[in-house]
Order: sequence, then C-alpha cells, then structure tokens
Amino acid sequence: MNEALKHLEQEMTAEGLDALLVTDPKHVYYLTGFASNPHERFLGLLLVRGEEPVLVVPVLDAESAHASSTVSSIVTHSDTDDPYSLLKSRFGTKLGKLGIEKEHVSVARFELLSNAAQADGFADIGPLLRRMRAIKSPGEIERMEHAAKLVEEVLRQGLTHVKEGVSEIELVAELEYLMKKLGAAGPSFDTMVLSGTNTALPHGVPGSRLIAPGDLLMFDLGVFADGYASDITRTFAVERADSELVRIYDTVLAANEAGIAAAKAGASYGSVDLAARTVIEEAGYGSYFVHRVGHGLGMDTHEYPSLHGLNEDIMESGNVFTVEPGIYVPGLGGVRIEDEVLVTEGGARTLTRFPKGWTVLEL
Amino acid sequence: MNEALKHLEQEMTAEGLDALLVTDPKHVYYLTGFASNPHERFLGLLLVRGEEPVLVVPVLDAESAHASSTVSSIVTHSDTDDPYSLLKSRFGTKLGKLGIEKEHVSVARFELLSNAAQADGFADIGPLLRRMRAIKSPGEIERMEHAAKLVEEVLRQGLTHVKEGVSEIELVAELEYLMKKLGAAGPSFDTMVLSGTNTALPHGVPGSRLIAPGDLLMFDLGVFADGYASDITRTFAVERADSELVRIYDTVLAANEAGIAAAKAGASYGSVDLAARTVIEEAGYGSYFVHRVGHGLGMDTHEYPSLHGLNEDIMESGNVFTVEPGIYVPGLGGVRIEDEVLVTEGGARTLTRFPKGWTVLEL
Repeated sequence: MNEALKHLEQEMTAEGLDALLVTDPKHVYYLTGFASNPHERFLGLLLVRGEEPVLVVPVLDAESAHASSTVSSIVTHSDTDDPYSLLKSRFGTKLGKLGIEKEHVSVARFELLSNAAQADGFADIGPLLRRMRAIKSPGEIERMEHAAKLVEEVLRQGLTHVKEGVSEIELVAELEYLMKKLGAAGPSFDTMVLSGTNTALPHGVPGSRLIAPGDLLMFDLGVFADGYASDITRTFAVERADSELVRIYDTVLAANEAGIAAAKAGASYGSVDLAARTVIEEAGYGSYFVHRVGHGLGMDTHEYPSLHGLNEDIMESGNVFTVEPGIYVPGLGGVRIEDEVLVTEGGARTLTRFPKGWTVLEL
Repeated sequence: MNEALKHLEQEMTAEGLDALLVTDPKHVYYLTGFASNPHERFLGLLLVRGEEPVLVVPVLDAESAHASSTVSSIVTHSDTDDPYSLLKSRFGTKLGKLGIEKEHVSVARFELLSNAAQADGFADIGPLLRRMRAIKSPGEIERMEHAAKLVEEVLRQGLTHVKEGVSEIELVAELEYLMKKLGAAGPSFDTMVLSGTNTALPHGVPGSRLIAPGDLLMFDLGVFADGYASDITRTFAVERADSELVRIYDTVLAANEAGIAAAKAGASYGSVDLAARTVIEEAGYGSYFVHRVGHGLGMDTHEYPSLHGLNEDIMESGNVFTVEPGIYVPGLGGVRIEDEVLVTEGGARTLTRFPKGWTVLEL
C-alpha cells in the first residue's frame, strides 16, 4: 500500500473517524497512483475502518484504474447509474462519522451524499490532507525538480524569441509551444508575459503590446509534469532601463534572497514574508508590494501553505513553496523575482536555479 | 447595467429570493464584464434586493475590476482580510433567503458563508444561470462568431503542416501555437488530432503516430477568445482512402446536415440527436455512433443543454450547441463532423463555416 494511504488510515483512527470519502482526483492520485480527470462524473476512494479501501470510478476509466491503482478493489459506475445509491447500497448503515474534503465537495454533491450516506456526522479531512501534502516525499521532490528544470529550459529557449516587434501574446505562444515540445503536460497556470508599464499590474493579462527598447519584460510561468507543478518569475530589461527600475530590481532581488534565507524548519511561514517585506519597506516601496510573498506548490500550483505575514504555522523539512516578492509602481513598471524553495533539515534550497542577476536583453 | 444582471435581478424577485451571492468567476464575468481568475481568493457579486450590486474582489484585482466591471460599487479585500467577516459587517443582518450556486460553492466555503451571512435559507441559483446562459445575447453571439473564425483560421493554417512523417502530437503543438499567435486565449479543450485507426477512438489521445498515406486524419479543436469557446471537428483523407471510409464520410456528413436542419425554436433538443442518428442507423452504422449528437457551448466548452435523444427540453432562439455525429469502426477508422449551430427565429444557422465536403490532403 501507498505510504500516504497508510498514513491517512492511521490518522483516520487517531481522529476518531469511522470512514473517509476522498473525491478530489489529485488526492485519489496521491493515495492510489491512479491519475484521472472524471470531469463531472463521480470518482471516490472510500475507506471504512477495518475494511479494504474501495475505489469507485466511472466505467470508462476502469481499465486505466486497474492498471495504475495500488488499491485493488475497484467498483465502476456507468452514466445511467446513481453513484450515491451505489455508495448507499454498499455502505449505507455503517458509515458513522465520515471524513470528506470540504474544500472539494460542492454543496450540490454534499446534499446528494448526505441523503445517501446516513453518516452520524461529517468532518473535514482537507486540512489533514493539506498538511500531509505539504511535506513532500523524496519521490515528489524528484518530480518537482524535473518540472522546475523543464520550465527553466522553456524560459531559456523562449528568451531567444525576444525580438523587436514581437508581442507579449506571441511570446506566450512560443513558451507554451516549448512546454509541450519539451515534454511537459502543459502550463501549470496561464503563462504571463508582460512588458513596459504593463509589468506594474501584478495580475496583468498578456496582450498585443510589442516589446520595445526601454521596457521591463516579466515572465511568470510554470509547467505540469508527472502531476507536479513548477512556477518561476524572472524580470529583464530590454536594451536599457530607467535608473529607478534598476533600484527597484535590486530591492526585489534583495527581498527574494532575504525571504529564501528566512526559510528553515521551525520558523513560521509568516517569517519568510516578513523578511522579504522588511527589505522592501526599508527601501521605501512597502506600499507597492501588494501581495503575500508566496504559496505552497506541489500537485496544485497554489496549495497550502499561504506565505502571508500573519501565518504562524511552522515550516517543516519537506515543505516546498514559492518566494516571490514584487514592487509594482503604476505608470512606471514592476519587478517580481520568484523561486521555488524546499525546506531541508539544515535550512532551505531552491529548486529553481535560473540566474537572477540584473540582465539586459539585446533585441 | 448589463442586461443579464438586470434579468437576474428580476428573476431574484420572481423566485422570492432576498439576496444572491454569485461566486463562479465565469458568472461574475457574465454579469459584470469583469473577467478574472481569483484562484483560491474570494470573488463574489452580492445582490441584495433594493440595493446597488456590490462586487467583492481581491485587492490586487481592484484596478482591473474598476476598468471593466459594469458594477461600480467595488469592495476589495487583502490576503490578510477575512472576506466573510467583510460580508457580515456589510450585510450581516439583512440577507433573508440567499441564492448561491450550489454546484460551485464548496462545503467549506458554505460553512464560512452560512456562519457569516445569517441567511434564513439557501436556494440554488445554478439552474437559473444555466438557463439564462443558454440564450445567447447578440454581443455573445458576436464573440462566439469571432472564436469560431479564429479556430477555423487555426485549422486552415494548421493543415499546411500536414506532411509525411509529422506526428499527431506535433500537429497538436502547431495548432495550439497558432491559437495563441492568432490571438486566442488558448485551447477551449485538449486539442485532438488522430490518424489512421486511432480515429476509431471517440476519446482517443494524440500520440507519436506518424501521418501516412491512406490515413483518415481527424481534427477536433476549439479556442477561448474573449471568454467564449469554439469547437469544430473536421475529418480528412490523406492521399487516398478505402471506399468504405468514403461511404462512412458521406453518411456522417448527411447526418450532420440532418441534425442542423432539425434545429429550430420550438422543437426538442432530442429531435436534433434523433434526426442525425436516423441517417446513420438507416445506413447500417447505428451501433458505431456511440455518443450524444452534441452539447451546449458558450463560456464553457460543455454546458447546458446536453443534446441526447431523451432530452425533451425545447430549443429557443439564441441557443448555441454543437452537432457532431460520428461513426467509429474499430480497426478501420472513424469520421466525425462537428459544427456550431445557432438557433434563430426562422430555424438555425452554423457559426462554423469551414468546408466539409470530402477532402483528400496531398502530402
């Protein structure tokens, strides 16, 4: 049995739960090795204390589930079956206190489930799964390093397409083409290429603006590979830059490095935000750093933990998160520098290694 | 105010609801013109009867929301604010019966909301929004025509890359590159290019198979542009084709045309499936047409209505859906021809116009 599933079963007992229903396809993958996208169809891993785990899958995924799942008891349902009646007929009177992922189950599905399941109560196993997922296993770290390497190669090759007259959106197209070509499943979020004063929009959308001398050029991109995400941001100057932008760049880089240096097991997540933010505040740009310093990364591009200043949860060895301070001055421009950080026993190291010194691109 | 929002407010009163909280980003776009991806952050459009609508957005989307939203009362929250306390402080004692999208709201968010909102009860506004979205406005039709034109240009240019030795997956990469280059936001679903006997798999996944003379070559692709999806399928022969495949092609084309001819306001959605299916059954291929004839299309690639034979709901002017009959003969090959159909007062017209006569590509 999968280590994560074994751990989950122990926790189920420890938390006094009689059964668990796991329905997030990513968690099913994490716990069984079976990856799928059931779209609107029902997918669930049911654990009843003292019984063998059962995986419930749409019939058209049966073959794939049998081939990849470490859980061997597999029940299928067709488009005309009601999966909730199926759950009820197999487990209707036994459920007791049932754990579900409250962040994943919609109110509509919960109404169907609670009509069918006759549980004594529903507990949220989301926080438990989030905490488990926040500690990456060596196998997961290997997959994340691969996803980071892939996106860095995409960025490296993508930079050769920065030429006079190319637009933001054309660069996005090149980068996403390279992702597929280099073997990624696809982007892990909407690839962002922003130029000139557009860089001052922390959530700007790439458009038809043409790259020109004097621009800042910001790339924020990531890929999915083997079910795991990468995420990196680098900001460049095109041909030349206003001296205030150079000062902003140096400040953001110092903040990025201060955030990374603050990452270590035993300290709070919030301390990473604070370390980066202090650098930016002391340089007088505090009001232009309008977001948290980073977010957990793994099977989701944004996952637990959230690295904001008030998060007092404690870092542990095996955590992977982004450190991505930024300064955005409307009308002038913005800089963000983002790395992926892995917390280790001794401190932390980055999974991203793309150079981050001030770089001026020639057209 | 946006017409859809006006309509929703009328329906709110008609259904006896005191307030609505719309949180699906697509619905927020539909009702306000503000498009965003808030990730895990809170986004909500709050309508309280008799009051001005309020849009609650993450602070880093504030500028973009002010620039694009027709709702001008915008409240922002930062990553350290609790958006539910914010809702409570503004609207805590006034909500009465609150409408929410039960398919979209998670149990976890619902618990936060119901703690904060002090509503007398919760109704599901999902079905109402689905029905509203199924009737496209002239502005939406314009955007859908644009998305259709874009994907047809992608297909046209993509066909120039069909050469001896090119693989299915390389053609997918070319097509998705062209999508971005021509200005689409991206594919509206996983682009499908299948060749040879792979075309017999209705849900086949493009792979490394090389295109060769004698193949059928099937393209099923779409783009998102301005928030709306397109979706088209064309099937070609490469250099030459088995005569049974030509007969299958003619049958599918006749079925496609019969389905489109059956589309008219006042008839049932099921009648479109039936018209196409009858043509295929009469040609003796009934058992090889293994899926419904089509699906609604709009802000989602698959949305209400589902065009299967048992759907007795009635077509209305403004509906847009796909008509995509197919015949899949294992070991031989498959043909599918898909158009987007707009139901009009007088009958129907297609939004897709790519030629669909039998076409042999030269390598």
